[in-house]
Amino acid sequence: MAALKGNCLIAQSGGPTAVINASACGVIQEAFKSGEIDKVFGALHGVVGILNENLFIFNDESPEEIELMKFTPASALGSCRYKLKSIEANEKDYKRIIDVFEAHNIRYFFYIGGNDSMDTASKVNQYAERVGYQLKSIGVPKTVDNDLPITDHTPGFGSAAKFIATSIKEVGLDARVYNYPTVTICELMGRNAGWITASSALAKKYEDDAPHLIYLPEVPFSFEKFGNDVKSVLDKYNYAVIAFSEGIKTKEGRYVSEIEDPNAVKDAFGHVQLGGASEVLERYVLENICKKVRTVNYSTIQRSAAHWASLTDNEESFMCGRAAVEYAIEGHTGKMVGMSRSKGEEYKCETQLIDLEDVANQEKKIPIEWISKSGDFVEQPILDYIRPLITGEVKIRTENGLPRYARLQKKLVEKKLEKWDVK
Amino acid sequence: MAALKGNCLIAQSGGPTAVINASACGVIQEAFKSGEIDKVFGALHGVVGILNENLFIFNDESPEEIELMKFTPASALGSCRYKLKSIEANEKDYKRIIDVFEAHNIRYFFYIGGNDSMDTASKVNQYAERVGYQLKSIGVPKTVDNDLPITDHTPGFGSAAKFIATSIKEVGLDARVYNYPTVTICELMGRNAGWITASSALAKKYEDDAPHLIYLPEVPFSFEKFGNDVKSVLDKYNYAVIAFSEGIKTKEGRYVSEIEDPNAVKDAFGHVQLGGASEVLERYVLENICKKVRTVNYSTIQRSAAHWASLTDNEESFMCGRAAVEYAIEGHTGKMVGMSRSKGEEYKCETQLIDLEDVANQEKKIPIEWISKSGDFVEQPILDYIRPLITGEVKIRTENGLPRYARLQKKLVEKKLEKWDVK
Repeated sequence: MAALKGNCLIAQSGGPTAVINASACGVIQEAFKSGEIDKVFGALHGVVGILNENLFIFNDESPEEIELMKFTPASALGSCRYKLKSIEANEKDYKRIIDVFEAHNIRYFFYIGGNDSMDTASKVNQYAERVGYQLKSIGVPKTVDNDLPITDHTPGFGSAAKFIATSIKEVGLDARVYNYPTVTICELMGRNAGWITASSALAKKYEDDAPHLIYLPEVPFSFEKFGNDVKSVLDKYNYAVIAFSEGIKTKEGRYVSEIEDPNAVKDAFGHVQLGGASEVLERYVLENICKKVRTVNYSTIQRSAAHWASLTDNEESFMCGRAAVEYAIEGHTGKMVGMSRSKGEEYKCETQLIDLEDVANQEKKIPIEWISKSGDFVEQPILDYIRPLITGEVKIRTENGLPRYARLQKKLVEKKLEKWDVK
Repeated sequence: MAALKGNCLIAQSGGPTAVINASACGVIQEAFKSGEIDKVFGALHGVVGILNENLFIFNDESPEEIELMKFTPASALGSCRYKLKSIEANEKDYKRIIDVFEAHNIRYFFYIGGNDSMDTASKVNQYAERVGYQLKSIGVPKTVDNDLPITDHTPGFGSAAKFIATSIKEVGLDARVYNYPTVTICELMGRNAGWITASSALAKKYEDDAPHLIYLPEVPFSFEKFGNDVKSVLDKYNYAVIAFSEGIKTKEGRYVSEIEDPNAVKDAFGHVQLGGASEVLERYVLENICKKVRTVNYSTIQRSAAHWASLTDNEESFMCGRAAVEYAIEGHTGKMVGMSRSKGEEYKCETQLIDLEDVANQEKKIPIEWISKSGDFVEQPILDYIRPLITGEVKIRTENGLPRYARLQKKLVEKKLEKWDVK
């Protein structure tokens, strides 16, 4: 089957990572090289940019800035949290997307994102097939949460894991300096899957090292057990460092973060807006255990720390971007680029093709046998799984002691269609 | 004057930094080389370890681990927040310190710490002179807060500033990806002086870059102005990144952090335990400006991020440790090692001697002319002042993708005196 001639479009969606731009850079540079693709469009703010026809052209950007994207955190193209309804419920959106593609002769669509974005890439692919528009739609995975199914792991996770394990090691050294008991509570990302939080365990080399306790969304949270766990750690080491996921829930299924604030704001996907669990735990410790308690809220620090990204993750992210273009030119569509880990002692990973439909809206949680039976730490197999993903340090360009990150012009192309204004 | 023959003792106090161990390493390695000093003692947990006679000997530690201290964050010796009263009010403590020194023939005392520690080093020096105990007492400065007077800047500050400017750059890129307005609130250290918070301004290269607003303890905080500032930034850029110091106060002198929680716990020095201002600001933004607000609480991350320490700060910290030994052997006592910046284009810094008494309990705030008149940002001179301090990246040793930090044995020496048990 001959490759489609035409242009391609790249978009990014969902929460950024330290390496999502490395994937974009892989797509762009491979598309430039391919000989099959003419212009490489970027959409501002994911599918919202497509709907609104807010497009720019990477061929007009400086190659130096595109190269710098490889080491630049966050979504250089802009992101969104716009959720496409089903084709039946809102065909208008799909028709518009195809109209925009057609107006700019876009024949390749690369969507870099997480579960929701894979769903979008899949539906756009289905609709293009239905209306007979020739399109190759490929998903490129990213999520610090590592919760995409089938693929061995997800680009973005290794860098978040490396930063968190490093920082918990450092915060742990800081926490243990005093001669009186202290408790340090570290809130990490992870709504339903505790992969990032679990990676903090890599910081521990000796028994007395941080972290001492790990609470994951996969295990129901009990305040009473938490209190006993912390007391027991303080008795042994005189300091306790606790890592927990923002999404921990009680056995009744209630988010710990909501216990203080039942009027939690909902985000656009209908998920509960999290981020207050540390306050709830801090208050509990203050009132029941220890007056010296510190909260460390890693928030977006953990997914943007490109200065300390994993070289392995960085290279794999770039590789996934390149592979997406190769697969599309080979004629594949409706697929996500996944990663498959070779069996054997030495870590090796290669790309694989996964049906977008099998990925969309699925979540991969930590296998229960990788969590300690007591529910307050993790077991060796998860460390063996994560460790290769954090290997190696990137060498980033600096300028006056700070990282020099990419800055795109993103000059919008002239619109060819009627105005849309989706938010 | 001939150098005193005898042993030396090193102690660390106050909040740790990314490079306080580099100073300790400088003291230890210079003491080993000096030929004048026999054993190099460390005290566990600062002056508390001296009082309790909890001492260990660096000559028994592995030279490799001592070398690794140069790049290891937090106080490897342990720290404390024990405040010595005046000699008049509590001569017993001073007598005990000299007894411990005498029992182990300690003739050189190097105290690495901030304002309070310089006060301790000064009083111990005065008491030694009063009772005729031959001692050289030298203070080695450290504080991420950069609030020690006279010295051009303080070891520890440059690394905190570098990490914060880097991370605010990264968090700022993350914050600007969406197509809807978002507010990001970053809480930074600084009780009365805003140096760390001011350093976040280095992250800004273009007008639209983060941070957009900076609030310092040096300027009275007004919620009304804050609200207007944030709205105006959102109108311009559709995202707002705000950096503020934990110690911001209203014009009535009330800590913003206390406004929600008047029952704030006091710490051992009688300072108010801070850390809740971000919650107060977050609530204000949610209720008055924007539903998409994120809080980033840098907590101890900012002072422990040795993986991204400033090479300049690291080398200067080591230099201050070495200089302390040289000065002491030359016969100086009752002094702090300060840093003096040469005039001229090129940044150069050398050590100087400062009377401990002039440093103790003084705080250096940001000169008011370095803060913008509007009170919500900083001016160019402070950037020119900070920039050289964040130059260069350390090359740390890694092991399995994570920093390999020092781990001391700290085997306690046999006690020669009656038991004390100060907490």
